[in-house]
Amino acid sequence: MAVKLSEKQISEKLDGLNALVSDDSPWERSGDTIKKTFMFKSFIRAFGWMSQIAIWAEKLKHHPEWFNVYNKVEVTLTTHDADGLTELDFSLAEKMEKFK
Amino acid sequence: MAVKLSEKQISEKLDGLNALVSDDSPWERSGDTIKKTFMFKSFIRAFGWMSQIAIWAEKLKHHPEWFNVYNKVEVTLTTHDADGLTELDFSLAEKMEKFK
Repeated sequence: MAVKLSEKQISEKLDGLNALVSDDSPWERSGDTIKKTFMFKSFIRAFGWMSQIAIWAEKLKHHPEWFNVYNKVEVTLTTHDADGLTELDFSLAEKMEKFK
Repeated sequence: MAVKLSEKQISEKLDGLNALVSDDSPWERSGDTIKKTFMFKSFIRAFGWMSQIAIWAEKLKHHPEWFNVYNKVEVTLTTHDADGLTELDFSLAEKMEKFK
């Protein structure tokens, strides 16, 4: 089971994650979650990206909370089982950046 | 362009739509929107359904607002261009029921 990260680990991992960000929208910490709004050129691109991430989510056994309208996807990641942020959240966030 | 429906039309169309509902969760009117929460047996089933609806949305040139977490999808439909509910919202909602 995924172990809740310490504040120091979260800070380091968030810096590492944001070093991967290629748009102007960094991930932000919000309590026990990390959040980001992804913007795409079209609905096809937004949903195409979601489809790739959905397969990764199932493979990682870790799923996002996400809201989509047209070309926008608002993502919130947390690990409910651990009552906080874990490696899994950062692994999924890295896939989201990689496939952006 | 889609024309905003009258209150009478909305009421009739909502009744017609809810006659198609096979789970215990009817569509509900909320101001200029109709809303429903869809529950599935798994993430794969929830996202699989979203993928079918995404293609229909693009084909209808009308897209949902939707929030997904694991096996749950919360849908909100409205037509921003018409500043209200139109035939398009009910067409997309019918597809959602058909592919549920």
